[in-house]
Amino acid sequence: MKKLINAPADVLAEALLGVEAAHPDLRVDHQNRVIFRGDAPRAGKVGLVSGGGSGHEPLHGGFVGPGMLDAAACGEVFTSPVPDQILAATRGVDGGAGVLHIVKNYTGDVMNFEMAAELADTEVVAVVTDDDVAVQDSLYTVGRRGVGVTVLVEKIAGAAAESGRSLSEVADVARKVNAQGRSMGLALTSCTVPAAGSPTFDLPEDQIEVGIGIHGEPGRTRVPLAPASEMAQMLVDPILDDHEFTGGDGVLAFVNGMGGSPLIELYLMYHEVNRLLGKAGITVARSLVGSYITSLDMAGCSVTLLKLDDELLRLWDAPVRTSALRWGA
Amino acid sequence: MKKLINAPADVLAEALLGVEAAHPDLRVDHQNRVIFRGDAPRAGKVGLVSGGGSGHEPLHGGFVGPGMLDAAACGEVFTSPVPDQILAATRGVDGGAGVLHIVKNYTGDVMNFEMAAELADTEVVAVVTDDDVAVQDSLYTVGRRGVGVTVLVEKIAGAAAESGRSLSEVADVARKVNAQGRSMGLALTSCTVPAAGSPTFDLPEDQIEVGIGIHGEPGRTRVPLAPASEMAQMLVDPILDDHEFTGGDGVLAFVNGMGGSPLIELYLMYHEVNRLLGKAGITVARSLVGSYITSLDMAGCSVTLLKLDDELLRLWDAPVRTSALRWGA
Repeated sequence: MKKLINAPADVLAEALLGVEAAHPDLRVDHQNRVIFRGDAPRAGKVGLVSGGGSGHEPLHGGFVGPGMLDAAACGEVFTSPVPDQILAATRGVDGGAGVLHIVKNYTGDVMNFEMAAELADTEVVAVVTDDDVAVQDSLYTVGRRGVGVTVLVEKIAGAAAESGRSLSEVADVARKVNAQGRSMGLALTSCTVPAAGSPTFDLPEDQIEVGIGIHGEPGRTRVPLAPASEMAQMLVDPILDDHEFTGGDGVLAFVNGMGGSPLIELYLMYHEVNRLLGKAGITVARSLVGSYITSLDMAGCSVTLLKLDDELLRLWDAPVRTSALRWGA
Repeated sequence: MKKLINAPADVLAEALLGVEAAHPDLRVDHQNRVIFRGDAPRAGKVGLVSGGGSGHEPLHGGFVGPGMLDAAACGEVFTSPVPDQILAATRGVDGGAGVLHIVKNYTGDVMNFEMAAELADTEVVAVVTDDDVAVQDSLYTVGRRGVGVTVLVEKIAGAAAESGRSLSEVADVARKVNAQGRSMGLALTSCTVPAAGSPTFDLPEDQIEVGIGIHGEPGRTRVPLAPASEMAQMLVDPILDDHEFTGGDGVLAFVNGMGGSPLIELYLMYHEVNRLLGKAGITVARSLVGSYITSLDMAGCSVTLLKLDDELLRLWDAPVRTSALRWGA
């Protein structure tokens, strides 16, 4: 295992020291491993909390800031944060208008966020993302896994909260994004969890794993390594089979890198995805290309499509100021 | 070789189609492989052109936009753009106030930018970056190589040009950034050039290459894999030995990923670098953490320090709107 780390057990704690040093507009609670907006809690604003295992950076800490999350609770690598961490995040963002939990659908995450919500002395609503069309149940999940759409939920619900909407309104828009979004990913290589020290799974040099989860959970199938045009089809087809994306105000097309794939390849994949959507009569109104929800050093990518409407477009375009997504502010 | 590509010969052309599709505010000249600001040329504004081999994304195309570059000429992977490409870029950004070429110090780049400048029918000034303290001469370079400081030159000179300064003033500030910046990098793994199909060099599982170039050129030395704290020292010490960074208005500290290293590790390295700078009595006034000048899928990182003054601070903080760096606009 070759990594830019000291002891595997210290990776998260030391990375959080780096986040704090690099971003003076954030506040890091090192004891609870929570990254806060520097000005949290904001009186009268719905607080947005997300979190989950680390190793998916910039998700979620890179999305803390005005127009997006108020706090991110950081579990150990690929490990759910414990209820105490989520509770500390919830309390720290409670400005009197209630708190929204944005939770990726993994059994541990869902359970720990629920326990924290019960312990909180404010109104909490949870929205669980489950956009991965690859598999129904999985290694850590009952139902579909929450993946790329989580980034879009955090941005769009974040804009809704920033504009002063109520907790139930912000939760509604978050649910709408999840309902109208679908994702699918593939891996060219495994990732290596620091504490394990060796690759999570074996993938022969001539094969790819289609429908991979963001922790290296098995996907739908292993197939021979293929050209990008065919790999794009392996991701786009199951998404289009699962949901109707034509008409309306078009889609947001998001090509996400898994961490180890260079940006030049992600743009090439975006070209292939965009071409396939055009052939399917789908209008791409917005796009996002980059490594935003990753699996440590895994090579590969995922595609997320979100069906847009007027409201979602406006909220997507609204100003955001975080370390990983920033515009208009 | 496992990559998200079709034929190796088509990587750049297809990635540029993706860039065009993803960024409606840019214009791509596919024949010349130049990425332009959509509104180039801007009358009365000094035009900024950079470029070089591809495979270092987001450098340079990701830095095209208001407040930074007007155009980027994209060579094949790790191959200088030819003079015709650079000439097309230069002509396309000529708003009557002259054009600045920002050139990383590699023999091919320097020569081809010089030839393009001679062919141009406008005034052209070139600033060559050579911030890499690792080695004096190298595989593709006479003198020091241009690496991480190039990102900072493009940002700061871009702000100067945007504010209406003259060509000689913009060139002066670009030279100042290069003169006050130093970098050093290390590799945990090689990268794989698509056209080659196999890793550029062999690096045993228990060794790292210190002082690596961004094309996998040999560095200063190979040493056993070490903890992040020691790796940070291997990068920071030679930089501090080479230039005085104490006093004044502090430094900008930039921890850059080589492409294959996940963000959580870069933040951990930033913590180590920040700690070492504190011990050396150096004040960090600004920071940048992420993969901004990469070597395809190479794992590793580089550190760049820039000594700041009032003028550089103001220009660094000025609004910028590109796909890879964006704030205040």
